[in-house]
Amino acid sequence: MKEDATEDQIKSVAEKVETIGARAHISEGDVLTVIGAIGDPEQVAGLELDAAPGVDHVVPISKPYKLSSLQFKKGEKTVVDVDGHKIGGGYFGIIGGPCTVESLDQTIETARVCKDAGVTMLRGGAFKPRTSPYSFQGLGSEGLQILAKAKEETGLPIVTELMSIRDVDEVVEVADVIQVGARNMQNYNLLTEIGRTGKPALLKRGLAGTLEELLMAAEYILKEGTTDVMLCERGIRTYEPATRFTLDILAIPILQGLSHLPVIIDPSHAAGRRDLVPPVSMAAAAAGADGIIVEAHPDPESALCDGPQALPTEEFAEFVEQVNKVAKLIGKTVKEK
Amino acid sequence: MKEDATEDQIKSVAEKVETIGARAHISEGDVLTVIGAIGDPEQVAGLELDAAPGVDHVVPISKPYKLSSLQFKKGEKTVVDVDGHKIGGGYFGIIGGPCTVESLDQTIETARVCKDAGVTMLRGGAFKPRTSPYSFQGLGSEGLQILAKAKEETGLPIVTELMSIRDVDEVVEVADVIQVGARNMQNYNLLTEIGRTGKPALLKRGLAGTLEELLMAAEYILKEGTTDVMLCERGIRTYEPATRFTLDILAIPILQGLSHLPVIIDPSHAAGRRDLVPPVSMAAAAAGADGIIVEAHPDPESALCDGPQALPTEEFAEFVEQVNKVAKLIGKTVKEK
Amino acid sequence: MKEDATEDQIKSVAEKVETIGARAHISEGDVLTVIGAIGDPEQVAGLELDAAPGVDHVVPISKPYKLSSLQFKKGEKTVVDVDGHKIGGGYFGIIGGPCTVESLDQTIETARVCKDAGVTMLRGGAFKPRTSPYSFQGLGSEGLQILAKAKEETGLPIVTELMSIRDVDEVVEVADVIQVGARNMQNYNLLTEIGRTGKPALLKRGLAGTLEELLMAAEYILKEGTTDVMLCERGIRTYEPATRFTLDILAIPILQGLSHLPVIIDPSHAAGRRDLVPPVSMAAAAAGADGIIVEAHPDPESALCDGPQALPTEEFAEFVEQVNKVAKLIGKTVKEK
Amino acid sequence: MKEDATEDQIKSVAEKVETIGARAHISEGDVLTVIGAIGDPEQVAGLELDAAPGVDHVVPISKPYKLSSLQFKKGEKTVVDVDGHKIGGGYFGIIGGPCTVESLDQTIETARVCKDAGVTMLRGGAFKPRTSPYSFQGLGSEGLQILAKAKEETGLPIVTELMSIRDVDEVVEVADVIQVGARNMQNYNLLTEIGRTGKPALLKRGLAGTLEELLMAAEYILKEGTTDVMLCERGIRTYEPATRFTLDILAIPILQGLSHLPVIIDPSHAAGRRDLVPPVSMAAAAAGADGIIVEAHPDPESALCDGPQALPTEEFAEFVEQVNKVAKLIGKTVKEK
Repeated sequence: MKEDATEDQIKSVAEKVETIGARAHISEGDVLTVIGAIGDPEQVAGLELDAAPGVDHVVPISKPYKLSSLQFKKGEKTVVDVDGHKIGGGYFGIIGGPCTVESLDQTIETARVCKDAGVTMLRGGAFKPRTSPYSFQGLGSEGLQILAKAKEETGLPIVTELMSIRDVDEVVEVADVIQVGARNMQNYNLLTEIGRTGKPALLKRGLAGTLEELLMAAEYILKEGTTDVMLCERGIRTYEPATRFTLDILAIPILQGLSHLPVIIDPSHAAGRRDLVPPVSMAAAAAGADGIIVEAHPDPESALCDGPQALPTEEFAEFVEQVNKVAKLIGKTVKEK
Repeated sequence: MKEDATEDQIKSVAEKVETIGARAHISEGDVLTVIGAIGDPEQVAGLELDAAPGVDHVVPISKPYKLSSLQFKKGEKTVVDVDGHKIGGGYFGIIGGPCTVESLDQTIETARVCKDAGVTMLRGGAFKPRTSPYSFQGLGSEGLQILAKAKEETGLPIVTELMSIRDVDEVVEVADVIQVGARNMQNYNLLTEIGRTGKPALLKRGLAGTLEELLMAAEYILKEGTTDVMLCERGIRTYEPATRFTLDILAIPILQGLSHLPVIIDPSHAAGRRDLVPPVSMAAAAAGADGIIVEAHPDPESALCDGPQALPTEEFAEFVEQVNKVAKLIGKTVKEK
Repeated sequence: MKEDATEDQIKSVAEKVETIGARAHISEGDVLTVIGAIGDPEQVAGLELDAAPGVDHVVPISKPYKLSSLQFKKGEKTVVDVDGHKIGGGYFGIIGGPCTVESLDQTIETARVCKDAGVTMLRGGAFKPRTSPYSFQGLGSEGLQILAKAKEETGLPIVTELMSIRDVDEVVEVADVIQVGARNMQNYNLLTEIGRTGKPALLKRGLAGTLEELLMAAEYILKEGTTDVMLCERGIRTYEPATRFTLDILAIPILQGLSHLPVIIDPSHAAGRRDLVPPVSMAAAAAGADGIIVEAHPDPESALCDGPQALPTEEFAEFVEQVNKVAKLIGKTVKEK
Repeated sequence: MKEDATEDQIKSVAEKVETIGARAHISEGDVLTVIGAIGDPEQVAGLELDAAPGVDHVVPISKPYKLSSLQFKKGEKTVVDVDGHKIGGGYFGIIGGPCTVESLDQTIETARVCKDAGVTMLRGGAFKPRTSPYSFQGLGSEGLQILAKAKEETGLPIVTELMSIRDVDEVVEVADVIQVGARNMQNYNLLTEIGRTGKPALLKRGLAGTLEELLMAAEYILKEGTTDVMLCERGIRTYEPATRFTLDILAIPILQGLSHLPVIIDPSHAAGRRDLVPPVSMAAAAAGADGIIVEAHPDPESALCDGPQALPTEEFAEFVEQVNKVAKLIGKTVKEK
């Protein structure tokens, strides 16, 4: 309550709290009075007491997410397991592949390199969110077919992005893990539809998303039935111009302390520059991430999208080996080649 | 180019530039060499020269948007005109109404107050994007029907949000202006579908959207056929905890200098507190905004959503009068009651 | 407390709170327990209970500043009054002048224009904080002498920046108001020394300073004896690249609601572009600011520092008139010419 | 130049460029004209061409720092070497000790633990920058004396903060490395005085400092004669409320690519929570940092300052071992115990 709140205002707030069956705990200090509302956090928030006369501010004490919380699984960690390819709960996984599916050849070539290097899953974009409507928007359905062939060829599970609820059936047919891009983190209709498919999801943090909002977005998916969501930190918007985004390395231990869901890092998009990908990937592994998702390309200079941040396939095996060494050092299980 | 770039690298970059029919202009300085690429900016960007050996960084000189640029209409400003209710190009407009359509009574009551106060258009949410899946998500179709009645009653054009491409037909039937929420600013499928309706749009800036990205998002809509898009600054995410968002007042003159589209301000969401709405609205008018979009409620304390930031309807007429006074002072035409 | 906090941990925290003479109020909810610490906020903060076993997080309820708070003067507003030149408490003031004192002629010419236009105080930098050690650092002592002459000539109070405690005596001799630059907002030694002079201060918000930190910085000055501090919002660092800084217009009503000190706006540094200065200045006046501080130059193109943001002196009188009109419209008293 | 720039404006800009002895390179494209200014970057910047008629914007191509650039030492890395205790150029160092010197016992006890654990240097604050003027401000001179004893006892070099130029002589007597706090990164007088001492410096990045500004701040020190500056990333201000600051892990490879100076990480202040210090420290080592600076305390719960982020001394040896393992894995030389 404000310092000059009247007795009536205090009483009125307490009564409001009690209308929803919660208890109101009044603590009078020398300077100001604090009212504790003990009951269902949703309902208390619904009262929007910020607006009540005499109220200074409202501080939520409980967390607003449930299904994604560590408590929900009593401390047990979720392992995303697609046909034995595991990420989370002690398993460190690398999801590799091209940013964009450009052609059958480029995709199959990259997929083979990834497979040989020992990645856990294969990534590739058929539908691409682009800032400009004039940029290449991905191969769409044709891209999905190419990914299906890459899976056939390598046996690796496919991670690919769903942008529109119109494409959900088509994507579900090919994808083993459905990716939600950063710009869609709070596209609630998309999250809900993905949750209904029951497929594992890879949810990227929005450019201005807080960690709590990321967990709330996961909650939208989990609420519909899906049990496996990977949380992906990919860099946030800050004032620093030297990199495209600022990678929030602290997100790894913070999220792991709040949630049972695996936490992975996308170093390619955060850095925006190929030479920064290895140090950031090593850092992620050392910080305890459950995995990374990285881009590779047989000829980055000719890539149709995000070439500057893709690792050349010829350096990919060495890269995977280095990152896995760090993950093993801190006690993670990595995929044996 | 980097300081240690070789002659071969410089030559190679110049050749790449020329493969797309652009000219390469090589300026050799004492310390480093700069290559100017003169041609279609899209195609030059497509080369992704950041990745080429010897390149230090690429600086785009041209703007990536076209249809939303001031040049496109040769300096003429767009006036959004719905049955004579005008915003933009010298007309200052106030879009008022409830945050959320909660009931017929609340909506009609608010609509009448808004009409009497002299607003230009009526706002109201039937589909509500909420951070939590457990929060009230809006009345949906029923809310649209209520808005239709509010229009019948007042004759005011309706501004309402579209969240899912599934609901486009239903929303188009009622909405005179289709609103895109901040979290959907880069939901490109939604933007494209809205562009196809040909209806005017009100596009909110994303929480981490740059002004250039906002114009690119408008470009997605304009490209499909819609000619009228209002750009709406509603506060961005910064480190400051005292307000929900930081309202970027400079966005008004910046956007007006870059684009022919009207620029409006949403003071309610930025501030998150009712008492901050009047000073920010006055500021927006004084800075030359083409309008504001504000929330009113007959009983803010019982509002189902965002009550703390809604103006009580009893203070609304006075509020509109004050804001209009400022707009008139700087030479805008305001709606006569 | 954490959800899994033990009885012992709860008891231990309560006991700690009581060691400093505060009361501990234990509220047990269904899910978690909240302990209210009722006593001196400084001492409670000193316990650093975040570190205690079982504690989830600590939420301060009281404000950490005292002398700068609205309560301290029981709601009365501070008017900074230098020989009848007033800012604050209903008086709207314009502080104008060159960014940097470059020469006697340029300074006197600008000062005369400012005087004729009706500014309240004269600004001018003798000591200049520059990002690069290779940039012009100001005329120093010579600059102060020039300012003294400008004061003699116009009778206007002088506002000038103090950068180093070494120069305090010299600056105090000339300055009527001592300016603290944004980069020195948390240079606590400098703040303390300024407070000891007893002179009014103009304190700029740091590039990443919160409003609470700005008030705490003012507290450092007030604590030493100075009673008059003007708080100055000059734009904060955000991700938006279109302007040098993002002006936080909401800072005006927020600070005025928390503090008795005058709140002024620096539109020149925030915008970084001359054409943006008038709309932002009008916005500041409309939002209820107590004043603005702006840069003028007889020949901005040849200015030694920040020329791009200085208003040409030939447009200055018109500018002052426009801004004052807005201030008068909302009920402020402006200086009569 | 702007799209509508006239021939005269283009000519006028070119002439200005030539007044300072630089060459002007005019490239006319289909849409707009670009003028390249080839000459001394300082002088070109001094022209402030942003203000010239017809100019759209100015893009600096050269870096504004010299002495801190990688080129300056032709790619050779600086090793800070205090009596054989080395950081940089392949040597990974840990700087450990109490946040604040509270007493002789606490400091000596912590120093011994640090020594035994194998740290490279000893940190400890005698002068403490505090947000509130009412908080404990450090023991001052007495604290310096205690640090001198800790050095005597352990033989470890001392790293301690200088806040005021008044204290420079006293601090120089005890400090082997002079620390500049984040809030003083752009306190140019302080930087200059430190540079004059010739002592190695540890320069923390400001809360809103860009990496380029950090290098410019180092330049202020280097310009006066000091040759050894350690750059320290300690977290920046972002919108994310879950941590005190967002640690910018990408700063490590970026700074190492731009400068010859060692780059170290302060995980304690960024995280603000003890449990986050180990994962972030491991991440820093894996990303290639030249060292870390961390806080330890024999009894963190009773610490006078920043207790929640200090590691208990009993866990310190294990912590150092783990971090060193990661550093060794990527090829760094660590201190042998």
